[in-house]
Amino acid sequence: MNDLLQKPRKVYVSRKIEFNAAHRLFNNDLSELENVEIYGKCSNKHGHGHNYLLDITISGLVDHDTGFLFDLKELKTILEEEIINRFDHKHLNHDVPELQECVPTTEVLAVLIWDILEERLRNINNRELALHEVKIYETGKNAVRYLGE
Amino acid sequence: MNDLLQKPRKVYVSRKIEFNAAHRLFNNDLSELENVEIYGKCSNKHGHGHNYLLDITISGLVDHDTGFLFDLKELKTILEEEIINRFDHKHLNHDVPELQECVPTTEVLAVLIWDILEERLRNINNRELALHEVKIYETGKNAVRYLGE
Amino acid sequence: MNDLLQKPRKVYVSRKIEFNAAHRLFNNDLSELENVEIYGKCSNKHGHGHNYLLDITISGLVDHDTGFLFDLKELKTILEEEIINRFDHKHLNHDVPELQECVPTTEVLAVLIWDILEERLRNINNRELALHEVKIYETGKNAVRYLGE
Amino acid sequence: MNDLLQKPRKVYVSRKIEFNAAHRLFNNDLSELENVEIYGKCSNKHGHGHNYLLDITISGLVDHDTGFLFDLKELKTILEEEIINRFDHKHLNHDVPELQECVPTTEVLAVLIWDILEERLRNINNRELALHEVKIYETGKNAVRYLGE
Amino acid sequence: MNDLLQKPRKVYVSRKIEFNAAHRLFNNDLSELENVEIYGKCSNKHGHGHNYLLDITISGLVDHDTGFLFDLKELKTILEEEIINRFDHKHLNHDVPELQECVPTTEVLAVLIWDILEERLRNINNRELALHEVKIYETGKNAVRYLGE
Amino acid sequence: MNDLLQKPRKVYVSRKIEFNAAHRLFNNDLSELENVEIYGKCSNKHGHGHNYLLDITISGLVDHDTGFLFDLKELKTILEEEIINRFDHKHLNHDVPELQECVPTTEVLAVLIWDILEERLRNINNRELALHEVKIYETGKNAVRYLGE
Repeated sequence: MNDLLQKPRKVYVSRKIEFNAAHRLFNNDLSELENVEIYGKCSNKHGHGHNYLLDITISGLVDHDTGFLFDLKELKTILEEEIINRFDHKHLNHDVPELQECVPTTEVLAVLIWDILEERLRNINNRELALHEVKIYETGKNAVRYLGE
Repeated sequence: MNDLLQKPRKVYVSRKIEFNAAHRLFNNDLSELENVEIYGKCSNKHGHGHNYLLDITISGLVDHDTGFLFDLKELKTILEEEIINRFDHKHLNHDVPELQECVPTTEVLAVLIWDILEERLRNINNRELALHEVKIYETGKNAVRYLGE
Repeated sequence: MNDLLQKPRKVYVSRKIEFNAAHRLFNNDLSELENVEIYGKCSNKHGHGHNYLLDITISGLVDHDTGFLFDLKELKTILEEEIINRFDHKHLNHDVPELQECVPTTEVLAVLIWDILEERLRNINNRELALHEVKIYETGKNAVRYLGE
Repeated sequence: MNDLLQKPRKVYVSRKIEFNAAHRLFNNDLSELENVEIYGKCSNKHGHGHNYLLDITISGLVDHDTGFLFDLKELKTILEEEIINRFDHKHLNHDVPELQECVPTTEVLAVLIWDILEERLRNINNRELALHEVKIYETGKNAVRYLGE
Repeated sequence: MNDLLQKPRKVYVSRKIEFNAAHRLFNNDLSELENVEIYGKCSNKHGHGHNYLLDITISGLVDHDTGFLFDLKELKTILEEEIINRFDHKHLNHDVPELQECVPTTEVLAVLIWDILEERLRNINNRELALHEVKIYETGKNAVRYLGE
Repeated sequence: MNDLLQKPRKVYVSRKIEFNAAHRLFNNDLSELENVEIYGKCSNKHGHGHNYLLDITISGLVDHDTGFLFDLKELKTILEEEIINRFDHKHLNHDVPELQECVPTTEVLAVLIWDILEERLRNINNRELALHEVKIYETGKNAVRYLGE
């Protein structure tokens, strides 16, 4: 490797994955009327759905030998196990234990996915690697970012 | 208007709209096992969902006076009444009467939307206007077109 | 060249270019009120504008020696001369002679661009080459196709 | 609501809207020649136009009861009143009072939209809510961000 | 299934896949100079590359029982075996036997992929199913369609 | 210019360009087997390729007279000279001297492009202008950002 990586270089690597899920925005602690006032047609009884696009960013130093921040195959495996298996082709209100007693808004999803991935990545033996950002697009127009703050 | 429109000009005008819906692929005439074999995780009990992107194409002659094929405001109203009101933020299996006793695949949705729009447009007092194509993207990767054949 | 091109193969080659232009939808033969009724805010006095995306399709047989339908460099030159020079960074109502006395709707633009390119391509010494389709996206949601019918 | 929101969670919520406008880059304090030198064909007399894509980001804590950062219906109303009504289907040089005596570059637009939205959001009774970023895409290739610095 | 599928309905189902490949446009029967004249920098010695986006369309009648034109899992398998295994992460000039003695233009790729998929689909026991179109985007701007003509 | 620019305004201006290149991920210091283990099919002998999308962000104060951060024509020239000429239609392993003895991962490319552009922009006579971010999309799914840290 030439001298490009002689000094430490902190990069941010992003990976997009999509999962297709149904959800209903409804808070059981509130009345039917209050729910409609807050969530409008998002509170319809049987739920609706989205192609959720998730854009995960990790950060850390480029490895001098491989030129990678992190093995992309390993990242794919983690996202398959933690995200696809948990959320894809599911109804978020019924099928995801972590979202029970939650209103599964995009904000809440972003926070949950951060918590899941941050714990998983924290245990990887790479001092510099860190989860940097979770961004979810509910539609092409709406997105939520969470950075662990 | 200058001579560009002196001779008849047949154009195809497309308009995209999006609706967010849940669905479950499950045929009640088949066993649980057969459904899983055919539909895989699309047959999960509570359903999942999509941002359906609908691309409607109408065809006909450009009007000499307005330079339009068809009044876009009127087309928007039709799509609002027939598509958004019927499908948006709904669970296709539970909330859409026309889809009862159906497996709401993208193919079936395309055919249903054609039937609905074709009937609606047929009654418009414009001899040349016709529905040309209904195209639905279930995801960015999968799409179905129906042309009334 | 191996035998893939032993028999004639008719392909359709598409090329996208963008031009940024202003326009106003207003028919001088009609009253101010009629214009507002037909064109709404598109008839605002000073005009508004778009990033027009043009998708040109030509068709013909793949050349046995080059593997091309048509020299892409030559197509780029034609589009630069006929489209970019004529429409880019212009106000369609004021700066484009061919659109004088026209309402510059997307339908009219598609027809005009067809006429311009069809004449230009007709004179190229390639028996099989033909303009197949002009498609213009006025926005990401609205598009017009013209095929010379 | 379960314990996901027991601790404060700062999220960034983005919403995209589009407006179609004409503009001309021309500084009245400079000569015709200087304007052409600086702005090139963007200084053409009658202006040109764009589909401006605006990506607004607000930040703050997720509400424990609703799971929202901010009511999306209220945000839509604000963007309709402040952005669409002011800029959509307008000629920025002629129709927008706040841009008089300005060269309406994308940089200037980003700054103006920040000032308008920051003032509007500052008055909302939600201690944590803040405008975080205004990003405008003039075309798919060019964008400007302003963060209030 | 209700009466939507009582009469035969011919639909067109499209599936997009991407493969990343290198290629060089160079005809061994021509001189270095002639190659540069025809192919420009596409003839550079070591080749360059693309994210090829392939959009395959099949057509046929919707199955009355499943609501599908064709089993999507089977289509995925076919595309994996015939397209991904053959072209992905390959140098088209060196690694693809079917392209030896070819100039691997997008036109030639479209024709080759048609031939491969048409033969594979022809043998499927479904009277109505047919390959309808192969469309390849070499970049976001350039695309080639082949329909078997 | 009106009072919008009376106080200093720091903006971030982004510009996207694309280059098409081949590369092979292979570390000469490692065995064939180790390379396959680390890089998988990215280590295939003749390389593969991508449509690299580069999104460059510069930052600084809006100029009071022009309303620009920086002359876009000058930025285009810099990107043409430094990026397009160096990388477009090249094989990164063979044709780019700066990448000799490197594994040309997207991480390494981002770092190299930062070094090149940062040096070029540093010499421009504009106290406030700075390179802010280099972001490269190798595919629509994978991206790397480098901010000079």
